[in-house]
Amino acid sequence: MSTIQDTIHQMGRQARAAAYKLAQLTNAEKNTILKAMAAAIRESAPILLDANATDLAAGEAKGLSAAMLDRLRLDEARVEAMATGIDQVAALPDPVGLVMEAWERPNGMRIEQVRVPIGTIGIIYESRPNVTADAAVLCFKTGNATILRGGSEAIHSNLAIAAALGTAGAPEHAIQLIPFTDRESVAALAGMDQWLDLIIPRGGKGLIETVVSLARMPVIKHYDGICHLFVDKGADFNMAVSLTVDAKTQKCGVCNALETLLVHRDIAPAFLPQVAAALRAKNVELRGCEETHAVLTDIVPATEQDWRTEYLDLILSIKTVASLDEAVDHINTYGSHHTDTIVTADVATAERFLREVDSACVFHNVSNRFADGGEFGFGAEIGISTDKLHARGPMGLRELTSYQYRIRGNGQIKGAR
Amino acid sequence: MSTIQDTIHQMGRQARAAAYKLAQLTNAEKNTILKAMAAAIRESAPILLDANATDLAAGEAKGLSAAMLDRLRLDEARVEAMATGIDQVAALPDPVGLVMEAWERPNGMRIEQVRVPIGTIGIIYESRPNVTADAAVLCFKTGNATILRGGSEAIHSNLAIAAALGTAGAPEHAIQLIPFTDRESVAALAGMDQWLDLIIPRGGKGLIETVVSLARMPVIKHYDGICHLFVDKGADFNMAVSLTVDAKTQKCGVCNALETLLVHRDIAPAFLPQVAAALRAKNVELRGCEETHAVLTDIVPATEQDWRTEYLDLILSIKTVASLDEAVDHINTYGSHHTDTIVTADVATAERFLREVDSACVFHNVSNRFADGGEFGFGAEIGISTDKLHARGPMGLRELTSYQYRIRGNGQIKGAR
Repeated sequence: MSTIQDTIHQMGRQARAAAYKLAQLTNAEKNTILKAMAAAIRESAPILLDANATDLAAGEAKGLSAAMLDRLRLDEARVEAMATGIDQVAALPDPVGLVMEAWERPNGMRIEQVRVPIGTIGIIYESRPNVTADAAVLCFKTGNATILRGGSEAIHSNLAIAAALGTAGAPEHAIQLIPFTDRESVAALAGMDQWLDLIIPRGGKGLIETVVSLARMPVIKHYDGICHLFVDKGADFNMAVSLTVDAKTQKCGVCNALETLLVHRDIAPAFLPQVAAALRAKNVELRGCEETHAVLTDIVPATEQDWRTEYLDLILSIKTVASLDEAVDHINTYGSHHTDTIVTADVATAERFLREVDSACVFHNVSNRFADGGEFGFGAEIGISTDKLHARGPMGLRELTSYQYRIRGNGQIKGAR
Repeated sequence: MSTIQDTIHQMGRQARAAAYKLAQLTNAEKNTILKAMAAAIRESAPILLDANATDLAAGEAKGLSAAMLDRLRLDEARVEAMATGIDQVAALPDPVGLVMEAWERPNGMRIEQVRVPIGTIGIIYESRPNVTADAAVLCFKTGNATILRGGSEAIHSNLAIAAALGTAGAPEHAIQLIPFTDRESVAALAGMDQWLDLIIPRGGKGLIETVVSLARMPVIKHYDGICHLFVDKGADFNMAVSLTVDAKTQKCGVCNALETLLVHRDIAPAFLPQVAAALRAKNVELRGCEETHAVLTDIVPATEQDWRTEYLDLILSIKTVASLDEAVDHINTYGSHHTDTIVTADVATAERFLREVDSACVFHNVSNRFADGGEFGFGAEIGISTDKLHARGPMGLRELTSYQYRIRGNGQIKGAR
C-alpha cells in the first residue's frame, strides 16, 4: 500500500468510527454544532481569505481562465454566504429517526422502517471551495461522516475551511479533508468500499466518468441536463413564449436550463416566428431542423450533434415534430432524463407526456428552471441526481439517509415448518 | 466490438425500448400476461423437464456435487411451484403509479412524487433455473425489462423457461435471456450503463465481487449474513434459548441464520450451559472465546476468523461480552450489517441496541429468521439487500421501482432574480 492509499484508508476507518457517533447525536446536538460551525467560518474569514489569496495567486500563475478564477474566489460576501448556508441547514428538520412506515404482523411482531444516516460519504469536487462547507454540512446534519477530496486549485482554501469547521465540537473525524489532490487519491477513495458507503462527485462529466469507472461503492451522479420544452398544438402561445424564454435565458449555465425546443408541426408556422423574436431579443442563437429552417430561414441548421449537446450558453436547438409521440421519443432518445416540460392546454396530452417521458422531473405549463431542491421546498440541495436508484432529481436531506427495519416482539420463533 | 458484446448491446437497446412499453401497461394488463406466463410454464412442463434432463446429464458428466445437482434439478413439483409463484405475483398490489407524496408550492405549482419502474434490470445468477422465472416476473410486475444471464450448468433449462415466458403476450424483448455463459458476457452486461439501469447479482460472494468490479451502473448486493444474537443480562433464559435454537437451527444454510451468539458476562456462567445443552441436542458444534471456554470447557476455541465466518452450517461461535457497548461494537465490527437480535426484558437496553447496531434488520426478542420479505408481508422478495442505498434489507416489489417528480402549473416562470 502506498502512503497515499494508506492515509486515505486510515481516514476511512476514522470516518466509520465517527459515523457511529454521529448516528447517535440528537437533532439539537447537531444543530448546536452547526451553529458553532457557522460562527467559526465567520470568525475565520481573514484566515480563509488569506488561504484563498494563495490559491488565486497560484491559479493566476498557472493561467486559469477568468471563469475558473471566479469560481475559485472567496470574498467577504461569499464567506458570509457560506456561514448563512450553515445556519439555514441547522434550521431545517432532521429526517434521521423518522418512522417511514410501521405495521404489525399476524404473529404479533411490530415492524418499523426508520430513517438512519447512510454512514460515510465521500465527496469529490473541483474548483469551488464553498463545496467544502456546503456538502460537509448537509452530510453532518443527516448524521453522516464525510471525506472530502477537493481540486488542487483550491487546496489552501479547502484546508482552511475544513480547519474552521473542525473547531466547532463535532465528533472527531466527522469531517475529513484529504490533503492530496492527485488522481491516486481519487482511486484510493473510490476503491475502499469497506469504509465508504457512497461517493458523490460534484463537477464536470470527466470527473464523474472517472469516479464511475473506479468506484466499488454506489455513486450518485449529477450528469448533464439536456432539457426540453415541447410546445404542443394545444398551447397558449403567450405562455409558451414566456416559458421558453424563462427556461432558456433566466440563467443559461445551469443543468435545468432549456437546450432543445420541440414544436408541434401544426402550429410551427405561426408559433416559431413569435418565439424566435422573443429569444433573439435576449440574444439567443437559434439552430433548427430542416422543417424549422423552412419557417425560420435565417437560422443555423442543427446537426445530429446539437440534439445531444448541453450548451450551457445562449444557444437553443429547435425541432419541429409531427406528434406527441415524436416529441416523447426525441426526449427519451436524445435527452439526459433530467427535466422536460410540455406546454399545452390539453390535459390528456399533458398527462400522457408526464407519464411517458422518462425523466427525473416532468413539468406541465411550468418553466424547467423550477427543477431545483430550493424551489421544491427541500430547503437545501446536494445536487440534482440523474440516477434512478436511491435518489432521482433534486436531492435534499432526506436523500442523504438510508433506513433500517426495527422489529420488536415477545419471543417469536419461526419453528418447524 | 466482439460478437458477444455486440449481441448483448443489441439486447440492451431492445430492453430499453421494451421498458418504455412496459411502463405504460396497467396493472390489469400486466396481470393478464402474468397469468398467461404461469399457464405457459405449466403447459411447457414436459419441455422444461426435458431441457433440465440435458443440463443434469451434463452436470453429472462434469462431476457436479450432489448439492449442486439438487439446485439444478427441476421436477414436476418445482415447475408447479414456479407457476404458482407467478400467479402469486399477479395477485400482489402494483406499486407503479402510486403517489408517494404530493404538495403545492407558494407559486401554485403542484408537485407529485410518483413511483415509476426503474427501467431495465440485469440479473446475473448461478445454478438454480427457477431464478429465470422468479426474477423476471418480479421485474415484469413492476414494469421493468430484464436481461437475464444464468450459469452454464442450467443453460438449457433457462432457455426453455424464457421461451415459455415469451409466449404469454408480453411486449417484445420484455424478458431476454443471454445465450452466452462465459465471463465476457458478464463484462459486456456490466459495462453498458447506457442501456442497463441496475444489475442484481444472485449467487455467491465470488459472483457478486466480479459484478461489483465490472459494473458501471448501480449494483444491489446480497452479501453474506453474519448474524448475531445478543443475550443481555436482562434476558429471560427460556426465551433466549428458544430464540437462539430457532435462529441457528430452524434452517442453517440461509443468510438470516445465526452465526455468532453474544452473551453478557453477568449471566454467562448460568446461561451458557443451558443454551449449550439445547444446541447440542440439535447437533450444533460450538466454538467459544476464552471466557466462554472457561464455562463450556469442552468446546472448540474460537479464532479471530470465526467472528468473520458465515458458516451456513450447524456451527455456532459464542463470545462472552462485558456490556451492551461491547456487543454493539463486536456486531458493527465483525458482522455483515444484515440481521442482529437482542434478547432482553430491559426496554432501554433493547432500544439502544436497535438504534446503535448498524444493520438492515435489528430485532428485539424475535428470531433472526424473520428477516425475510415473506415474513415482513411483502408477498414476494427479490432478495435481502446488504446495501444501504436505494434498498436495504428484504426487497419487495416497491424496491424494484424508482420515482419521478410530476409538476403541474399554469405558466409559472422563475423570472428576474
